[in-house]
Amino acid sequence: MSVNPTVALALDFGGTKTEAALVDESGRVVAGTRFRQSTGGAANSAQLSAAVTSVVQRAVAAMPAGATLLGVGIGSAGPVHAVGDLVSPLNLPVWRRFALRDLVADQVAKRFPDVPVVLRMDGLCITLAEHWVGAARGYNNVMGMIVSTGIGGGLILDGRTVSGPTGNAGHIGHVEVAGFDDPCACGGRGCVEAIASGPKTVAWARSQGWHGATGEDLAASFAQGDVIASAAFRRSGRAIGQAIASATSLVDLDVVVIGGGFSNATPVLFDHVREAVATRGEFDFVTKVQVLPSGLSGDGPLIGAAALVHRAEMVTPN
Amino acid sequence: MSVNPTVALALDFGGTKTEAALVDESGRVVAGTRFRQSTGGAANSAQLSAAVTSVVQRAVAAMPAGATLLGVGIGSAGPVHAVGDLVSPLNLPVWRRFALRDLVADQVAKRFPDVPVVLRMDGLCITLAEHWVGAARGYNNVMGMIVSTGIGGGLILDGRTVSGPTGNAGHIGHVEVAGFDDPCACGGRGCVEAIASGPKTVAWARSQGWHGATGEDLAASFAQGDVIASAAFRRSGRAIGQAIASATSLVDLDVVVIGGGFSNATPVLFDHVREAVATRGEFDFVTKVQVLPSGLSGDGPLIGAAALVHRAEMVTPN
Repeated sequence: MSVNPTVALALDFGGTKTEAALVDESGRVVAGTRFRQSTGGAANSAQLSAAVTSVVQRAVAAMPAGATLLGVGIGSAGPVHAVGDLVSPLNLPVWRRFALRDLVADQVAKRFPDVPVVLRMDGLCITLAEHWVGAARGYNNVMGMIVSTGIGGGLILDGRTVSGPTGNAGHIGHVEVAGFDDPCACGGRGCVEAIASGPKTVAWARSQGWHGATGEDLAASFAQGDVIASAAFRRSGRAIGQAIASATSLVDLDVVVIGGGFSNATPVLFDHVREAVATRGEFDFVTKVQVLPSGLSGDGPLIGAAALVHRAEMVTPN
Repeated sequence: MSVNPTVALALDFGGTKTEAALVDESGRVVAGTRFRQSTGGAANSAQLSAAVTSVVQRAVAAMPAGATLLGVGIGSAGPVHAVGDLVSPLNLPVWRRFALRDLVADQVAKRFPDVPVVLRMDGLCITLAEHWVGAARGYNNVMGMIVSTGIGGGLILDGRTVSGPTGNAGHIGHVEVAGFDDPCACGGRGCVEAIASGPKTVAWARSQGWHGATGEDLAASFAQGDVIASAAFRRSGRAIGQAIASATSLVDLDVVVIGGGFSNATPVLFDHVREAVATRGEFDFVTKVQVLPSGLSGDGPLIGAAALVHRAEMVTPN
């Protein structure tokens, strides 16, 4: 890090925790500036606000002497509204159309009154991070995906982020998958999130007679040759691949990068994803899409939020 | 039309016919400048080239005295390659990676050596036409759809066309639909084109005991209260709506405009489309999408090809 760094204050706000940190121009978290508080569906609105305020204030206080604060980037669980002014995180029902951007801006303005504050969906931030320092470097048409307790994502097309008129572009988890009909939390049926998230994959394996409880258990069973675990990863991997094939048909992607806890369960998951994409053999513009594992560390969400500031030229304005 | 109009030469190249015309700055075909030749899967490559050459030369010859040719816009059946240099129209197997743009450019250059020649997929051109003079005027996030012998489309996001790295963005027909598993010509299964195109809808109705042969027959049966025809429109309409819900989840659309012969069969088709979108009740960014019938005349494909020239500021470059 240079002596007088230019940094972004990054906030990642999710369903189970919120974190803030300072991130430098090379996409690295400044040592000693990362702070975390838990959130969770049991918290009330004041507790959520207090968690955000706490991590933001601590990150502000950690600004190195001589450093310049270029701006604030916020990645939030969605849906969002008004392209990043308001948030309604699906798993935190006490916040609906909550003005998270203003809450953060007010905290930061006490010491830095004039810096820009930009909020986008967390899936878009992850995608920016993959493009900046991860597996999607050098590509202009990228979908980032998180496969974890849910399935989310974000889009970069022609080198620019896609937010859409409400800020919710990138909800790949709610793209349907043929051959399935499982009810989804969104009200639809057969969305890939309703089939292939970690918990849904585990639930399917249990319905077939497997006795574990978590994605980690399922990975362990798979490593031991368990037939149901193998079938479960095949089923979910193919569903994810089908959703990727649909997305590529619609927006003509170069690369899809998949991260999130459940995506690390076994590399075989990626084999099944790629098999499903390969079935679209008549359309080389579909089968050409590369499917890669995330190139990010655990700092990815914060780096992505910081990219809203450091790579602002890619971010479609409100 | 003004005395000294500025016009675009528009070419629409499809699986059954090709047409050329001059289109003025207000999005109108100049009277007496529209020419047509049939194409078709039985034609060899030389015949296809001759058809294109014929309509282009006749449109060039029809240039009014004093008119200025601003450029040439080509809408082609896809897939395409290299963002509009080469075409591989699915129903014309004698043309694979055929240099249609160069063929047209060479013809026009004989009289107008310096005009730009731009080719994009026909579905994108239709979408530009809807945005320019049709049902999508005033919206920045638009998907155009054609529901006919196949299902195609195009995307405008944040006021700019989306082509993708190969030029094939907008293939909504190959977005999968949950609850179906029909084999598709692309190699996949359950794509909306494999379920809800005119011929596929007719085939399903016949499989249920209906005895007609065409989409028009099916519309006539529906008008007479036929139960199978009613079920067929419901099935296809809901499948189209499901694909629209997936697309809106992914790219956050304001409006979807549907044209094409089969979309005109009955307004009830649109009711079923909207019903399927409405099931996504937890996500107002999905249910907010408007689904509208095309606002274009039969000149739509030519107006859209001309929009590549007259509205060049919206067209993402190669």
